[in-house]
Amino acid sequence: MTTAEAYFREKRALITGGLGFIGSNLARRLVELGADVVLVDSLVPEYGGNLFNIDGIESRLRVNISDVRDEYSMRTLIQGQDLLFNLAGQTSHLDSMQDPNTDLEINARAQLSILETCRKHNPGVKVVFASTRQIYGKPQYLPVDEKHLLIPVDVNGINKMAGEAYHVLYNNVYGIRACALRLTNTYGPRTRVKDARQTFLGIWTRLILEGKPFEVWDGSQLRDFTYVDDAVEAFLLAAASEEADGRVFNLGGADPPISLKDLADLLVSANGGGRYEQRTFPSDRKRIDVGDYYADDRAIRSALSWQPRVTLREGLARMLGYYRQHLPRYL
Amino acid sequence: MTTAEAYFREKRALITGGLGFIGSNLARRLVELGADVVLVDSLVPEYGGNLFNIDGIESRLRVNISDVRDEYSMRTLIQGQDLLFNLAGQTSHLDSMQDPNTDLEINARAQLSILETCRKHNPGVKVVFASTRQIYGKPQYLPVDEKHLLIPVDVNGINKMAGEAYHVLYNNVYGIRACALRLTNTYGPRTRVKDARQTFLGIWTRLILEGKPFEVWDGSQLRDFTYVDDAVEAFLLAAASEEADGRVFNLGGADPPISLKDLADLLVSANGGGRYEQRTFPSDRKRIDVGDYYADDRAIRSALSWQPRVTLREGLARMLGYYRQHLPRYL
Repeated sequence: MTTAEAYFREKRALITGGLGFIGSNLARRLVELGADVVLVDSLVPEYGGNLFNIDGIESRLRVNISDVRDEYSMRTLIQGQDLLFNLAGQTSHLDSMQDPNTDLEINARAQLSILETCRKHNPGVKVVFASTRQIYGKPQYLPVDEKHLLIPVDVNGINKMAGEAYHVLYNNVYGIRACALRLTNTYGPRTRVKDARQTFLGIWTRLILEGKPFEVWDGSQLRDFTYVDDAVEAFLLAAASEEADGRVFNLGGADPPISLKDLADLLVSANGGGRYEQRTFPSDRKRIDVGDYYADDRAIRSALSWQPRVTLREGLARMLGYYRQHLPRYL
Repeated sequence: MTTAEAYFREKRALITGGLGFIGSNLARRLVELGADVVLVDSLVPEYGGNLFNIDGIESRLRVNISDVRDEYSMRTLIQGQDLLFNLAGQTSHLDSMQDPNTDLEINARAQLSILETCRKHNPGVKVVFASTRQIYGKPQYLPVDEKHLLIPVDVNGINKMAGEAYHVLYNNVYGIRACALRLTNTYGPRTRVKDARQTFLGIWTRLILEGKPFEVWDGSQLRDFTYVDDAVEAFLLAAASEEADGRVFNLGGADPPISLKDLADLLVSANGGGRYEQRTFPSDRKRIDVGDYYADDRAIRSALSWQPRVTLREGLARMLGYYRQHLPRYL
């Protein structure tokens, strides 16, 4: 066990969105490291929370079903925590355009309310916020570093931008230690695969395992991908390091950027078969698409010694293996 | 009358925050140009709205007392308008820290709701949004141009950043023509002078006219100042120009940047007497102060041929003249 890992033993950690994709993988790791873990999740059906995500570790942590918009339950839950992994969010770009107010409530207002609660009731807590590359909008240069302007192309991006900014502000003004990770496409076991709401890799995985063709929209877009275990490692490093306080970090992947078409081929190859259809972008998605994106993640590699280790080929294989076994629990 | 001015004849224009400082000056100008003007204002006591601000033009426009947070009244008011000057806002940095949720409701949520209303009920409207230099936070270089990163140092700055971003988004995604002006310190007749809530120049003006010393905090900070008539001109140019759609523009002033100490001396000189005391920053203000700020406003000068004309010396004299006559109406 490294020093960073020892840091988590007996630490009290609250994970918002803890039954979701990244939250539950993080919970598993924290439990393994001996932390005292509480998960908050609203289990909104369209979001990523799934009780099966903590299958096998239910007895080693506590689950509290509630919503980050519920100020009073959050007040009780935040008190006494050493660490707050703040991952709850509305993550669908398209939903944020159709119901912008709900997105604002979750991604902006609830975040402000959580930070106010920290300030009033637990100023010593350390907060790591799950931000997103979506806040950059359409890249003006590549790879995108943290100095890139934020010009979000959807309501979700704007509200996440505000949510992230509150965290940095509360760090700088009130000394609530907080930092943010700007996640790129994160993939792996326990992601939502039911539909394309959170990530296209989810629905691709579902369809290929069901023996159906999946759809690749355009296909030429370059993207980068973080395997969930590598993302979890970044959350741990950020939580354990004072170096991170007040900062925002891009996450990238272990592989160079890849086009969606090449990714589709890689998925078919990792699955030992399957097929997809290339088609043009649906218009409601096209207008909020950002085109090519890949991160310059040298800041976190240098400041926190983060190093993504799982290659796409390996990660996709693990993801397929997981859903080959558990797909019905995610439908 | 120039072409731009002729543009406003018989145009139906709604001004949110229309009884406030800039809103009421804009209303006067629009009425003069023959526009059909409706003002919305909530007259929240701590904000800048004041019925006296439309003294003498009451019969030439309509006033509707309501709040931009009130979705239903806004829905009715926005329908049928050609122009929406969107100036309503919570503008106190300090209040935004003490009551962050109210700031979010007004500066972020109500803006999103207004834009949704435009999208659903009046997609042909042209919107000009009053943004603020506050969203830049502490400048990383000077003068600050529109490419400068946004790292707000208070909750108000974050919510205004989101409010501005919604406008650009709705322009880009839905074709609701919208643009934003990032105002710096704006001054002149009809600003709130009761206290230091909105602008220090307000309380300085009040105190000097009452024969009392005013306070200069620190004094070395460099700032730029826009006389309100010049700001109004920028709103008109932005409204009349397609060039502005989807863009954000800094406003600067007619003079070079000036230190607050020199500004205080200029005010005393313009007043023909008066005194001030220099003191250190109060701690609650210091932590959200941005230090030196002045804008690079070449973008709006070039794109819209905007040219601030009123010098500080002249503007301060006009402001003092106004309040010498009307101070009791603002206390």
